[in-house]
Amino acid sequence: MPAAPSAGPFTLDQLAHECGGTVAGDGAVLIHQVNTLERAGAGEIAFLANPKYRKQLEGTRAAAVVLSADHAALTAVPRLVVDQPYLAYARIAQRLNPAAVPPPGAAAGAQIDSSARVAPSAAIGARAVIGPGAQIGDACVIHPGVVIGARSSVGARTVIHPNAVLYPDTVVGADVVIHAGAVLGSDGFGMAETASGWLKIPQIGRVVVGDRVDIGANTTIDRGALDDTVIEDDAKLDNQIQIGHNVRIGARTAIAGCVGIAGSVHIGKNCKIGGAAMISGHIEIGDGVTIAGGTVVAKSLHQPGIYAGVYPLDTMERWRHTAVRVRRLDELAARLEAAEKMLRELAPDAAGAAKKS
Amino acid sequence: MPAAPSAGPFTLDQLAHECGGTVAGDGAVLIHQVNTLERAGAGEIAFLANPKYRKQLEGTRAAAVVLSADHAALTAVPRLVVDQPYLAYARIAQRLNPAAVPPPGAAAGAQIDSSARVAPSAAIGARAVIGPGAQIGDACVIHPGVVIGARSSVGARTVIHPNAVLYPDTVVGADVVIHAGAVLGSDGFGMAETASGWLKIPQIGRVVVGDRVDIGANTTIDRGALDDTVIEDDAKLDNQIQIGHNVRIGARTAIAGCVGIAGSVHIGKNCKIGGAAMISGHIEIGDGVTIAGGTVVAKSLHQPGIYAGVYPLDTMERWRHTAVRVRRLDELAARLEAAEKMLRELAPDAAGAAKKS
Amino acid sequence: MPAAPSAGPFTLDQLAHECGGTVAGDGAVLIHQVNTLERAGAGEIAFLANPKYRKQLEGTRAAAVVLSADHAALTAVPRLVVDQPYLAYARIAQRLNPAAVPPPGAAAGAQIDSSARVAPSAAIGARAVIGPGAQIGDACVIHPGVVIGARSSVGARTVIHPNAVLYPDTVVGADVVIHAGAVLGSDGFGMAETASGWLKIPQIGRVVVGDRVDIGANTTIDRGALDDTVIEDDAKLDNQIQIGHNVRIGARTAIAGCVGIAGSVHIGKNCKIGGAAMISGHIEIGDGVTIAGGTVVAKSLHQPGIYAGVYPLDTMERWRHTAVRVRRLDELAARLEAAEKMLRELAPDAAGAAKKS
Repeated sequence: MPAAPSAGPFTLDQLAHECGGTVAGDGAVLIHQVNTLERAGAGEIAFLANPKYRKQLEGTRAAAVVLSADHAALTAVPRLVVDQPYLAYARIAQRLNPAAVPPPGAAAGAQIDSSARVAPSAAIGARAVIGPGAQIGDACVIHPGVVIGARSSVGARTVIHPNAVLYPDTVVGADVVIHAGAVLGSDGFGMAETASGWLKIPQIGRVVVGDRVDIGANTTIDRGALDDTVIEDDAKLDNQIQIGHNVRIGARTAIAGCVGIAGSVHIGKNCKIGGAAMISGHIEIGDGVTIAGGTVVAKSLHQPGIYAGVYPLDTMERWRHTAVRVRRLDELAARLEAAEKMLRELAPDAAGAAKKS
Repeated sequence: MPAAPSAGPFTLDQLAHECGGTVAGDGAVLIHQVNTLERAGAGEIAFLANPKYRKQLEGTRAAAVVLSADHAALTAVPRLVVDQPYLAYARIAQRLNPAAVPPPGAAAGAQIDSSARVAPSAAIGARAVIGPGAQIGDACVIHPGVVIGARSSVGARTVIHPNAVLYPDTVVGADVVIHAGAVLGSDGFGMAETASGWLKIPQIGRVVVGDRVDIGANTTIDRGALDDTVIEDDAKLDNQIQIGHNVRIGARTAIAGCVGIAGSVHIGKNCKIGGAAMISGHIEIGDGVTIAGGTVVAKSLHQPGIYAGVYPLDTMERWRHTAVRVRRLDELAARLEAAEKMLRELAPDAAGAAKKS
Repeated sequence: MPAAPSAGPFTLDQLAHECGGTVAGDGAVLIHQVNTLERAGAGEIAFLANPKYRKQLEGTRAAAVVLSADHAALTAVPRLVVDQPYLAYARIAQRLNPAAVPPPGAAAGAQIDSSARVAPSAAIGARAVIGPGAQIGDACVIHPGVVIGARSSVGARTVIHPNAVLYPDTVVGADVVIHAGAVLGSDGFGMAETASGWLKIPQIGRVVVGDRVDIGANTTIDRGALDDTVIEDDAKLDNQIQIGHNVRIGARTAIAGCVGIAGSVHIGKNCKIGGAAMISGHIEIGDGVTIAGGTVVAKSLHQPGIYAGVYPLDTMERWRHTAVRVRRLDELAARLEAAEKMLRELAPDAAGAAKKS
């Protein structure tokens, strides 16, 4: 039920021209918006990527459908036939729904330090604060309430949503999206224990974010202690992620919401970290590792593959029972050992045979 | 130790008149504030809901006590006798401590777009930003630093605390409370994997929040991808909850702090989700389900009931031991099977008898 | 790669004079900054605290090194010889990198209520809002976008980073650091269940924070229901921690990121709570307790010691296997019991002997 205006309409032929694919049926049909097979109506284009939704294709009232050649014969609706329907759908959705871009220049109430360098094509929202020596690149959008610390730099076309904060000396690349309430460059949790309490270790590294990185709402990324905290190009971070000091996140790695990554963790490229996974400090995770949601990672993982470690859910009553069994596994193992010993004494030959089987 | 001023004093008779119940003892006693049985003193009313605190009733120095008929004879202090002491206490506490309401109108420094429609009875705080086409209902309180995106609407009497953010096209009902730093309408984590990296799926759905919903501090709710993310009437959300795109939370469902709910999860009505529970994507949870804190829910739950799944805590030393046992459960089971086989061979009749028993 | 300017340079002799220790070698060498043994170069001082990095000491190009007497003979580089190299390093790092202090006074765009009392030596950032009756102590730094609620007080030299929020009646001590986006004093999650839905319990307690407390970015601390939520002196809280109403955190206790603490939990002094640990409501944790990261604490812990409770990680395939075994532990135990019974019947004497062994 999108309320924002579409950039369309476009004809199906135009979309095929811009986003790839060949048209079957009426290429002049006008497309305003994307929608699901089930809910699409006049002026809307739907897509079929997963064969299990073929039934929905039959009943769709969409104005047009994106699908692969295998399924092109299943409907008479105007079609865009492509190799990868989901990717084509993504491109069409982008074409129809470009991000709203405010007019360039500083809104009333924005406070830009006289030593900051802001590209004339950048848009600075109401109440945004740009600190001394900061640099804001071409066509950036800095939304209301954002605070950019001293000497921080933001690359071209990067969008920073309301009330996000960049501490001083933060470096953000081009085409990055930082969502509302995210904090980059807060102090890492570095302290030395002394007889009289905790002694703070100054955190003098930076946060350095590559190009085309997404950072979710209320996600926090601590600055490095000595070296930098680094988020490489094309990494994608969801909401409410916590990243400790001196962490490195590899290129194209995607991290779902509520993940916590303790200090000095290095995560490789092309990893996928499931929601609410927690990664202990000073761990290395190699390229191509997938971690299931909710898993606690307390040791390094050098082999690509899928890892998990979540206690299985049950009814409360059965869980109580099983949890006691888990706590007493040692006892169970000792009892089994005693039984095995007895069996060996009762029937030494049978015991040998059973072991071989 | 409340520092904010009370709306009182009221006599006990007045409170009985407004909040229900019958007075025993001096109804003219003046009540300024609520407090616990243990700490209440002059001018303060306490309550006894749980019989295990009867001892505290004997020693209380409260000016008055709310209790049920069963306990009315246990003290000579002026009493308000009611059926449900905790509910009566809640009503009295509300009567004595109404939310502070700032004067209507826009504070200095608020920035309201000329196309926004703000009710004259609404209070807009310093530095709040109200975007183009936004609508703010009667008697709303928009605190300092709040950002309301374009075309968003906020129902009557809704309170939005400092620095919370509503992205464009967000719909919030009446009598809602949104706490500081909460973010509604950020992009869902929707991307298609391509050979050259991640391709963003535009998130064109909205966040739609019903009436009388509470949303905690720094909680984040993503907008829908195509359809909306929906929080139904009377749902209560604590702090630091993450709600993914296209989630639906049923009416009166209460969710404790730090819960993560992945995309497209549907949760029924009257559910209770414990703190830090994590719910995987595309799951359905029926009405009346309770999830214990810390539980990872990775499959749909259609039956009402209480579910749990938390690894039992132990001393570090014993945990290390047991964790190894858990990882080698397969081996333990294989050994047991071998022992059972030997037993069957040694004493086939006994084995049969044991199985039946 | 610190981009912020150092307060130096100082000679090694000056640092020894100010931070303790004795100099071996050229005390006139100029020190601008700290760095690691591996990366330090001209003008930089490194440290050796852990003997396993002795190799790096040999190859270092640092201008000077902090180390203990044991290792002083291992290098010819100018040395600062101290008892505790890490502490000395921390002090030197602080000396070289003092926090940037903005000039006193209110920046343009700050909004300070006429009834607030702000020390002339305090710095109030752009767009900060100081509410009625609030008090800001000597040499405080209130960064841009911070909102200080009515009647709240902030002790001397406390620093509050951008866009953090203090609700009304919050009390913060001296020398506290509150990071960006943190929220203190939001309502606790207190509701009574009624036939017609949830009835809110007014939260009229406060948040009271001692001296020298650190509070991380986007951490949330709820106000008390009746009594206060209390964070004692020298407690250290990392990012994205959630603290429920009426919690008490003891002096010098350190809590890592993403920890959730439910309502009315009391944690003692000198505790260490690992990242993403979750603590259920109404629990008591004594002094000197350490909780491993990711652990769910559902019962009180009165003995000092280290506690853990995390499901061990495995490959997804093995995890699936083992999780089924865990859920069926009851069955495994029943089978073992049956086997033991058979053994007792087969060989009563042997069974007795085995039990004793």
